[in-house]
Amino acid sequence: MQIRPERLLADLRELATIGAFETGVNRPAFSAEDLAAREWLRARMAAAGLEAAVDGVGNVYGRMPGVDHAVLIGSHSDTVPYGGWLDGSLGVIYALEIARAVAESGAARRVGVDAISFQDEEGTFLALLGSRSFCGEAIDGDVAAARSKDGRALADALAESGLRGRPPARLDARRHVGFLEAHIEQGPRLERSGGQIGVVSAIVGIRTLRAVFRGQADHAGTTPMPMRRDAGAAALMFGALLSERLGAHGSPDTVWNVGSATFKPGASNVVPSEAELIFQFRDASDDLLTELERLIRDAAMECARPFNAEAEVVRVLETRPAAMDPRLAGLIERAASELGASAARMPSGAGHDAMVMARHLPAAMLFVPSIGGRSHHVSEDTSESDIVRGAQVLARAVELLLQDGTRSPA
Amino acid sequence: MQIRPERLLADLRELATIGAFETGVNRPAFSAEDLAAREWLRARMAAAGLEAAVDGVGNVYGRMPGVDHAVLIGSHSDTVPYGGWLDGSLGVIYALEIARAVAESGAARRVGVDAISFQDEEGTFLALLGSRSFCGEAIDGDVAAARSKDGRALADALAESGLRGRPPARLDARRHVGFLEAHIEQGPRLERSGGQIGVVSAIVGIRTLRAVFRGQADHAGTTPMPMRRDAGAAALMFGALLSERLGAHGSPDTVWNVGSATFKPGASNVVPSEAELIFQFRDASDDLLTELERLIRDAAMECARPFNAEAEVVRVLETRPAAMDPRLAGLIERAASELGASAARMPSGAGHDAMVMARHLPAAMLFVPSIGGRSHHVSEDTSESDIVRGAQVLARAVELLLQDGTRSPA
Repeated sequence: MQIRPERLLADLRELATIGAFETGVNRPAFSAEDLAAREWLRARMAAAGLEAAVDGVGNVYGRMPGVDHAVLIGSHSDTVPYGGWLDGSLGVIYALEIARAVAESGAARRVGVDAISFQDEEGTFLALLGSRSFCGEAIDGDVAAARSKDGRALADALAESGLRGRPPARLDARRHVGFLEAHIEQGPRLERSGGQIGVVSAIVGIRTLRAVFRGQADHAGTTPMPMRRDAGAAALMFGALLSERLGAHGSPDTVWNVGSATFKPGASNVVPSEAELIFQFRDASDDLLTELERLIRDAAMECARPFNAEAEVVRVLETRPAAMDPRLAGLIERAASELGASAARMPSGAGHDAMVMARHLPAAMLFVPSIGGRSHHVSEDTSESDIVRGAQVLARAVELLLQDGTRSPA
Repeated sequence: MQIRPERLLADLRELATIGAFETGVNRPAFSAEDLAAREWLRARMAAAGLEAAVDGVGNVYGRMPGVDHAVLIGSHSDTVPYGGWLDGSLGVIYALEIARAVAESGAARRVGVDAISFQDEEGTFLALLGSRSFCGEAIDGDVAAARSKDGRALADALAESGLRGRPPARLDARRHVGFLEAHIEQGPRLERSGGQIGVVSAIVGIRTLRAVFRGQADHAGTTPMPMRRDAGAAALMFGALLSERLGAHGSPDTVWNVGSATFKPGASNVVPSEAELIFQFRDASDDLLTELERLIRDAAMECARPFNAEAEVVRVLETRPAAMDPRLAGLIERAASELGASAARMPSGAGHDAMVMARHLPAAMLFVPSIGGRSHHVSEDTSESDIVRGAQVLARAVELLLQDGTRSPA
């Protein structure tokens, strides 16, 4: 079973012409370009011999006929606004190419390959919409409430897409033996370490919190320091303490970010009456995230006290960590080793459809290096040799899985 | 020499009707209300026997006829937008009432009293415009460049006021033996300590700085902590260190405030590429301010380093401290003591016209308590008894100065 590098690269490049912007792609979910790309993919899957359709939310699902079981492979073809050409698309074209390679190998099989491009992984309307719908998760409420940043309702986007009412593609526990997603790393670890293949151990959980400190707006010249209720000073002390605490108590892979700070009223000569920090922290262990959140909440109270301020910490968003399946990850490692590619186990610091899939069946992910660690930008890129190597390793992992494929999911 | 409390309070209340808003006053410099108030004042000064005129920038200057020397007394009658009824107006009406009391005392004098209301102390267009113009400071460039927050040029405001071309009122070194300004405290110190009269030792200098940290916008999940260039983390550490350093190295009267924080791009999942803090610190000693600024600049560099960021610290504004004249301050203290009022020496944490005047002649200030320390708000207020007591103490200080008034400025 052999993939054909030229065909793989040609399809990746052709897909990148749909919504092309500078050296990147602008193809947010449900844009005309996104829908055109999905129709193009459907036709490509059909040409590869898959039973392919775009479903009621925009998932493009290609089913290999004549098999009892299938490895599901894929990612997403929607992009962030004015994003890169590989984020999502890489994993989708890998799936298409591997399905072609399996079909071309000619062997009669009980276990085949299904390919998928999930809708709106990037959250233009509702992050991970496609994979959540595919897995039959309860999303009707979220779908009804979801709006894009510019105020368009997801319900309207669905109606205008002409897709509404089509049957949903669905995970089939009897058919699907596992899910494999290839993706660009979106970070610099592989490039910096010289690794060629990232084998994802887990997708980290993310907790996004908002800390609001409340004090009193007073004249910053005439009010003695001990009489102030200084929300800004409390927030600054908290921001510094947060880094210290997470550095001291997090795992080596814990990351965090204070992304936004807002002081009100915002004048240099007025003591801030309100100061807000929005921050998030990520780790592969949910227990550790819970412990860190407790430390952070304590730190906020500690920092409010000396400045006579009040602190409120609210959880804005929570995504739970998702462990990848050790057997599938092991197969990717074995495939890399057989092909002489250097592989490194690593957590994924970003969310992916595989995070949803892992809640329902064994799932694993393969990363290829991102040049300069860049993503979500038109400069996002991966060398051709890394793109081809990633596809070859994933294809070999699929081959190993198909040979071993009588094992259905538990 | 006796002031008349009822007349004083009636004039204060009448002035507050011009531009009245709720329990406060909206009379920004060069508004129709401000110009009307200045014309009202001019007429009141003329009725008190002063040679009164509104000058080319809007200063209302009333000159006592028939004297060789004069104590200049006054403040400003413009307000911040929707401000209080006493800020500035109190000192202007004290000047008017004391001029009346001197005139009514009937004694022939070589030394009299001049009254003044300076223009735009609050900086609607150009802070301290009136006193700087009165002292003949070089302000032509500042006047040409000045605009209000809503974009109106000071030059246009001057032209439209009909004042342009009128002769400027000017400080006269041979005539003016000193400047006295009464003002509400705008802070809680007198009220909290039970003091009735504040005798200002110095008006603090203010340095307003902007610290900008520059890093790189990276994915906050996929970029390992040591590889980040985190402008936000540097700014937070700096904000916390700033408080520590100023607390440790400032004087007991040093105050500081981080009033504004802005992170770009401002998303919880993107490492901030730029973080700006705008802050100020105040003290009565210019040498100490210089030393503190050096410590702050060092702190910014220290905080940038561990986060691979760059720091730039720019001085946005500098007002130098102004010491009050010890002899004049002593006369206010003596007057308070004679009238049985409790007096406390204190620095002024806010800027005042007396700060400009002190650069050119002996100047002193008297504070009356502000209820709840509030100012620049419609709720700003002072009890009637405190208003009257302040006028009586200032009048007595003027009387002492007139008795002692053969001493001209050095």
